[in-house]
Amino acid sequence: MASTNPQTTYRYTNFPDSSFWGNRRTTVRRVTLPVQLHMLKGTGRYDAFKLKWKPIYDDPPASWPVPKHLFWDSDVAKWIEGACYFLAEEKEQGKSVDEVEAAVHELVEMIRNAQQEDGYLNIHYTVVAPGQRFTNLRDMHELYNAGHLIEAALAHEHCFHNDQLLAPILKYVGLLHRTFGPSPDQIHGYPGHPEIELALLRLYKRTHNPEHLQLAHYFISERGNGNSGGTGKHYYDIEREKRGEHTYEWPEHYPVRDPYSYQQAHLPITEQQTIEGHSVRAMYLLTAVADLMLLEGKAQQNYENALTRLWTNMVSRKVYLTGGIGAIYQWEGFGDDYFLPQSKDEGGCYAETCAGIGVVMLAERILAQELRAEYADTMELALYNAVLTGMSHDGKKFTYVNQLGSGESSLSERQDWFDCACCPPNVTRLLGSIGGYLWTAQEMGNQRVAVNVHLYTRATLNLKVGDAEVEVEQSTDWPFGDGTIGFSIRNLPTSSDLTLRLRIPLWASSWYLDPPLSAAEMHDGYLLLPPTYLHANASFTLRIPLKPRLLSPHLYTNQRIAAVARGPLVYCAEDVDNPWEADHFKSELRKDVVEGEEIVGIRAEGAAGFLKVPERYNPSSDGPTDSWSIDKTRRRETLRFVPYYARANREGKAMMRVGLRILQ
Amino acid sequence: MASTNPQTTYRYTNFPDSSFWGNRRTTVRRVTLPVQLHMLKGTGRYDAFKLKWKPIYDDPPASWPVPKHLFWDSDVAKWIEGACYFLAEEKEQGKSVDEVEAAVHELVEMIRNAQQEDGYLNIHYTVVAPGQRFTNLRDMHELYNAGHLIEAALAHEHCFHNDQLLAPILKYVGLLHRTFGPSPDQIHGYPGHPEIELALLRLYKRTHNPEHLQLAHYFISERGNGNSGGTGKHYYDIEREKRGEHTYEWPEHYPVRDPYSYQQAHLPITEQQTIEGHSVRAMYLLTAVADLMLLEGKAQQNYENALTRLWTNMVSRKVYLTGGIGAIYQWEGFGDDYFLPQSKDEGGCYAETCAGIGVVMLAERILAQELRAEYADTMELALYNAVLTGMSHDGKKFTYVNQLGSGESSLSERQDWFDCACCPPNVTRLLGSIGGYLWTAQEMGNQRVAVNVHLYTRATLNLKVGDAEVEVEQSTDWPFGDGTIGFSIRNLPTSSDLTLRLRIPLWASSWYLDPPLSAAEMHDGYLLLPPTYLHANASFTLRIPLKPRLLSPHLYTNQRIAAVARGPLVYCAEDVDNPWEADHFKSELRKDVVEGEEIVGIRAEGAAGFLKVPERYNPSSDGPTDSWSIDKTRRRETLRFVPYYARANREGKAMMRVGLRILQ
Repeated sequence: MASTNPQTTYRYTNFPDSSFWGNRRTTVRRVTLPVQLHMLKGTGRYDAFKLKWKPIYDDPPASWPVPKHLFWDSDVAKWIEGACYFLAEEKEQGKSVDEVEAAVHELVEMIRNAQQEDGYLNIHYTVVAPGQRFTNLRDMHELYNAGHLIEAALAHEHCFHNDQLLAPILKYVGLLHRTFGPSPDQIHGYPGHPEIELALLRLYKRTHNPEHLQLAHYFISERGNGNSGGTGKHYYDIEREKRGEHTYEWPEHYPVRDPYSYQQAHLPITEQQTIEGHSVRAMYLLTAVADLMLLEGKAQQNYENALTRLWTNMVSRKVYLTGGIGAIYQWEGFGDDYFLPQSKDEGGCYAETCAGIGVVMLAERILAQELRAEYADTMELALYNAVLTGMSHDGKKFTYVNQLGSGESSLSERQDWFDCACCPPNVTRLLGSIGGYLWTAQEMGNQRVAVNVHLYTRATLNLKVGDAEVEVEQSTDWPFGDGTIGFSIRNLPTSSDLTLRLRIPLWASSWYLDPPLSAAEMHDGYLLLPPTYLHANASFTLRIPLKPRLLSPHLYTNQRIAAVARGPLVYCAEDVDNPWEADHFKSELRKDVVEGEEIVGIRAEGAAGFLKVPERYNPSSDGPTDSWSIDKTRRRETLRFVPYYARANREGKAMMRVGLRILQ
Repeated sequence: MASTNPQTTYRYTNFPDSSFWGNRRTTVRRVTLPVQLHMLKGTGRYDAFKLKWKPIYDDPPASWPVPKHLFWDSDVAKWIEGACYFLAEEKEQGKSVDEVEAAVHELVEMIRNAQQEDGYLNIHYTVVAPGQRFTNLRDMHELYNAGHLIEAALAHEHCFHNDQLLAPILKYVGLLHRTFGPSPDQIHGYPGHPEIELALLRLYKRTHNPEHLQLAHYFISERGNGNSGGTGKHYYDIEREKRGEHTYEWPEHYPVRDPYSYQQAHLPITEQQTIEGHSVRAMYLLTAVADLMLLEGKAQQNYENALTRLWTNMVSRKVYLTGGIGAIYQWEGFGDDYFLPQSKDEGGCYAETCAGIGVVMLAERILAQELRAEYADTMELALYNAVLTGMSHDGKKFTYVNQLGSGESSLSERQDWFDCACCPPNVTRLLGSIGGYLWTAQEMGNQRVAVNVHLYTRATLNLKVGDAEVEVEQSTDWPFGDGTIGFSIRNLPTSSDLTLRLRIPLWASSWYLDPPLSAAEMHDGYLLLPPTYLHANASFTLRIPLKPRLLSPHLYTNQRIAAVARGPLVYCAEDVDNPWEADHFKSELRKDVVEGEEIVGIRAEGAAGFLKVPERYNPSSDGPTDSWSIDKTRRRETLRFVPYYARANREGKAMMRVGLRILQ
């Protein structure tokens, strides 16, 4: 398992259209991919690899020194990667070429032609700043773009079974391996925005070329070295001096103190005590660190300690109720411990969609190392509430920042696209490979396989147990309904051993297995169903009652609020459903003591009696009738909630709030 | 009145030692002035005007581009100014020379010798960076230092009746007037840190030299001009380019967006809609704007509108319960509307002592223009709770930042001195001239005078009414006791008319005059006592009951807290008096619902019955017996409070909090 990634294993999972995630994938395939292709064309990104000059190249930097077009390579690469995950299934089914597939082929052709003699492949440094390649690793996203090209190439080869994209990328990686490293004639640098590290580790699993592992290892271990090449200096200062920039000249968005914490390069990773800086960079970096440990084994004790330390600091002190991360606008990243305001006008709330995706990626890698329900809980929380909230129900509009509360200068609304368009195609590629996050299969050798089920939805998993093609099916309305999940095992030979481990979320106050187990074994939050049980019961049901509950942030956040949650879903109040919104719901519960008491009543006595059991939520419906509501028993008014992931899908004033004041 | 300053009128006020402010002044004279002199000597500031090289001049900047010694001129100047306010009284009484006076004479001699041929006078640009004068007005505090030298010179002349300091300063000002202005051969710049503007206006009132008014006017009106000298550029960009600094190179502490809002130079003052940036700079600038209007008359309608707009924005959305300003550490200044966390680890709280002094100075100037109790209320609130809290009871230790709540990384504790030592001597000079803030006398011509009483304490005012030396005395325990103020008028000729206007604070729910007025006239919060009343009553008492009350910040601050206040004093809870402090009192009221309900009981039903009437508070006593307390009627525990100005005077863990959680 350690040597696989969800981006490859997703192929063994199939979704019926009635599946919650199947439905989201269908929307992305039918709507989002064509819409994003249209945006790539409209904004000039699509044919940028033709290396012609474009007017936008003359624009001043969005935020010095970053030109507006700097990420274009990655925007295209992420779209290709996402498209390939969907096309792979269709190619198997022999579907004919449509505009999405045609675009993939044309883009690959353009990328091939854009490659330089020596293998170099980057739009900005070929068209706009030739001769300056690798002179600003700190800010210019050169290696970040390379990383996404690698991931696109892997998805492309996996889909089309040819090396049209992988071949040129391998040539580029060869150049990078010769360029970066410890020897005197090599550059001792590493990317300001991690990404290539995790891409190289994915690549290594495909190629088993030690150079790929070696380069990832170098980028990770050299990072934050204050004595680069024995100079006594930080590499970013060395290259800065070479660029002729002044000592105190750095991008305005860096943290004032300890500027290189922005890139998690203020110290070697093994010496970092708290999670700091830009949150997407932090997640991509730690995902690579976790993957490196899986490949090199826990010999790397220092890395394991750092990973545990930083993960714990994050989930215990720097994560929002939604699983989103990053409170500070200036550096799109982490603030002080417990500093987690709900909105911009309360001091900050960023929770970038890409950062939520990073949390999912990191949690998945850690989970692959150590099977503990708490990692899967965080993964699921972020998936629904920090990632899915970034895309509209129709798949056409997106958010970059995901605040828990709207403000006058920061409404809860979506956009078609962004100048820095990292988020939209990132959602596309995650949903493309989402099947790989549901469960993991573990070869135990000699006809023995274990399947660890992390997430619940309607889906089937096909896996080889010995020579047999076994199918595991789960069927549920999760995250809605009553929390019943039906399982069926098909075509399991009596000669084979299949073990299932079913995640029981930490928030679950009870669970029921039918038929029951004589002696239930639970390991770190996973319920173990042994081969004997599965041979005896080809079908069985697990029920994890989805009870409404209230979440409250840690006292030290200084927020006396509660948020409505049910199962993995966090809910929010929107102005379309509720009469009061003048102050973006900041004060409402104060105005209505009854409401406040009822809410606390829920917390004190459990939700039963106060919250209606919800119907499946349908964001495309207008009315709030199928939305969450709190009945106030004294007065029959209703305070209505909808799932946070489904916010901003209807007409309204774009006013929304997750955490509402409580009065105890 | 418009043409006087408290720094000159303070001389007509005398304090008995039993007076609250008299007691503070005595401490400053006997302890603080010698202690600060010792600090000036120990840190190298004292003899810096000898223009010898010092090792610290080689140190890297504290925060680029500001060297550690850059403010030394002003540290010395502010101490001289403060000392002269006290010495003036002693010289009248013929007191002999002591070490403080001797130091003033020696410093003046050093300053005289430090002056260059052409009148230039600055340590850094003479010793460390000769030839670079006036090349970085934006950051280098050159004109700020000049401003404080001007104020020192005015106080020195006022005290010693000679021009030993004023003469060289006038020569320097002459150079500045030739150097800065609109003509092509002049520099079109203005100081990054306002101060010289208000100093020049004080100087003009002494000299009536139109050049002094003209230069102040130029600095104020040119500020924020985006088309400096018709170049289409901002002056700070012009000088930056001359220095060879890069486009995106600016000090790390500037606000990320709109960097020149740090200096309130992002727009002309008349176009600024909200108060932004560094809070001390904002207060000094607006104080000068208000003074300019007093001198030039309200012809300057645009300035009046801007002043009203910015003052209103500040007092309604950007001021703490204590009268302190500035939530943001990075730029020591204002944050978004209603963003007023209590402590650093909750997102920020700066409330610099100098900024509190700025609020007092600005309120005094606005009050001089328009007699309204609300201005005096703000002045008094800031004086006790944002300024006096900056000095220890013994006069030896100081705070720079005045948080409303302590945190692990920001305890409520004092220091002997600071590298950037702006605050300690600023408190000294304010207390030196505090008598000028109590009341203002208005000549009404022809034997007719009005005295407006803004602040209450034990003090006497001597003034000329016609040919008579009239004495007005007020006697009270304010801010303690029951709020009774006794007045006596002495030596008032029957032929003369004296009018008194007594401020009734907006927080006062009632007031009593004895003997009563047949028909009381109240104008904008000032009770008018006409000549007839004063002729009939040489003695009378005003009583403004000092009732305990709770203050709460605006709902949009997202803080469900209340602070105990009584009269002008805001109170705080310290760990020395209270058993619970593990979390710096963040959560305590949550742990004790009874307490919370009682507090709200106070708000709902008035304090009577819940809060003991306090004794005079004596910070030098150990026990909390004379401190504030809330009696919990159900359980006889006590939650103890002390005045915020008196915090951090006793042993303890330096844990403190003003606003405590309430539960409604």
